[in-house]
Amino acid sequence: MFITFEGGDGSGKSTQITKLQNTLRKKGYDVLLTREPGGTLISEKIRQLILDKNNREMMPVAEALLYAAARAQLVSQVIRPALEEGRIVICDRFLDSSIAYQGFGRQLGDAVNVINGFAIDGCMPDLTIFLKLDPEAGRGRIGSREKDRIEMEPDAFHRRVAEGYRWLEEHYPERILAVDASGSIEKIAATIEKAVMERIHAL
Amino acid sequence: MFITFEGGDGSGKSTQITKLQNTLRKKGYDVLLTREPGGTLISEKIRQLILDKNNREMMPVAEALLYAAARAQLVSQVIRPALEEGRIVICDRFLDSSIAYQGFGRQLGDAVNVINGFAIDGCMPDLTIFLKLDPEAGRGRIGSREKDRIEMEPDAFHRRVAEGYRWLEEHYPERILAVDASGSIEKIAATIEKAVMERIHAL
Repeated sequence: MFITFEGGDGSGKSTQITKLQNTLRKKGYDVLLTREPGGTLISEKIRQLILDKNNREMMPVAEALLYAAARAQLVSQVIRPALEEGRIVICDRFLDSSIAYQGFGRQLGDAVNVINGFAIDGCMPDLTIFLKLDPEAGRGRIGSREKDRIEMEPDAFHRRVAEGYRWLEEHYPERILAVDASGSIEKIAATIEKAVMERIHAL
Repeated sequence: MFITFEGGDGSGKSTQITKLQNTLRKKGYDVLLTREPGGTLISEKIRQLILDKNNREMMPVAEALLYAAARAQLVSQVIRPALEEGRIVICDRFLDSSIAYQGFGRQLGDAVNVINGFAIDGCMPDLTIFLKLDPEAGRGRIGSREKDRIEMEPDAFHRRVAEGYRWLEEHYPERILAVDASGSIEKIAATIEKAVMERIHAL
């Protein structure tokens, strides 16, 4: 079972991932938690490159290829082996982030899909939890923490990203569960737990 | 005019590139010399990642995507702007290296072509000088210098790379000029100069 979490900055992803992980472990499941970009030594080095504020001149296609490289390494080295061992894998961001941020945000369109086809090689999530929040509200929640290169992008970029997530939600209704992220932490956690347990029992 | 140099390790590429650069500058041409992977700040950081001996667990697809990312950045930031200014660009390795090393060496096949299509976005060399040398002879020439992660690959890998170059030579006879790299430095330089001047006058 491969579960991914998506959502704009400040949508409460980390909180909900931790809660789901704890819930599943208490139920006796063997859970592997990882994140993107990152999750392997090589992918974390790529992450540093991508998010470094000094790499301002990074071109959109180069950025998309770097995310895909980090993903290819993570899938082959961590995600696929864990799934083959029967573990539940939870990944903080995955393919959908690239479609929203590079496909829509950077306006690279379908190139992102093609490039990532090689990176994931068929390893698609069984369930994607999309924590949905108005981008302005999300960015307000980030508060005074220092922003990375992607978070520093202008509002127009983040509006295109939000449009990307709406597109994904419409096109993959069976895989993607959109959850209103403006609700209470406990209520959101209960909704996620219910959806995850349903999928586990359906497998 | 966009000229690339290809050839296995120890084929004398650097020597010939320097000689061609000097010859063209003496003739009054404005020459930009660059290299792959590298040539921009971001691409040089990617180069470090790719060649670092410690990154032994790097997966073939991740490697191919990293080369393509470095290339996308170099094309957009350096090569295309220079060509648009009417300069002659000489690049030490380019697309053909990926086809030989990742497509053939790593046996990724056509995926390398597709991925790089996005990276170069139509920016193909006008002329490619391929310094052809028996791989064993080339590796002997490297001598005692410390090898990078790719050079450390076993002989079977380097034989597949050589096969890749043969395939390229056969499929792009108009673009690729194969030069016997076992000849004298001056003789090779003269052959290259002749071919380059013919192309310049034909443009």
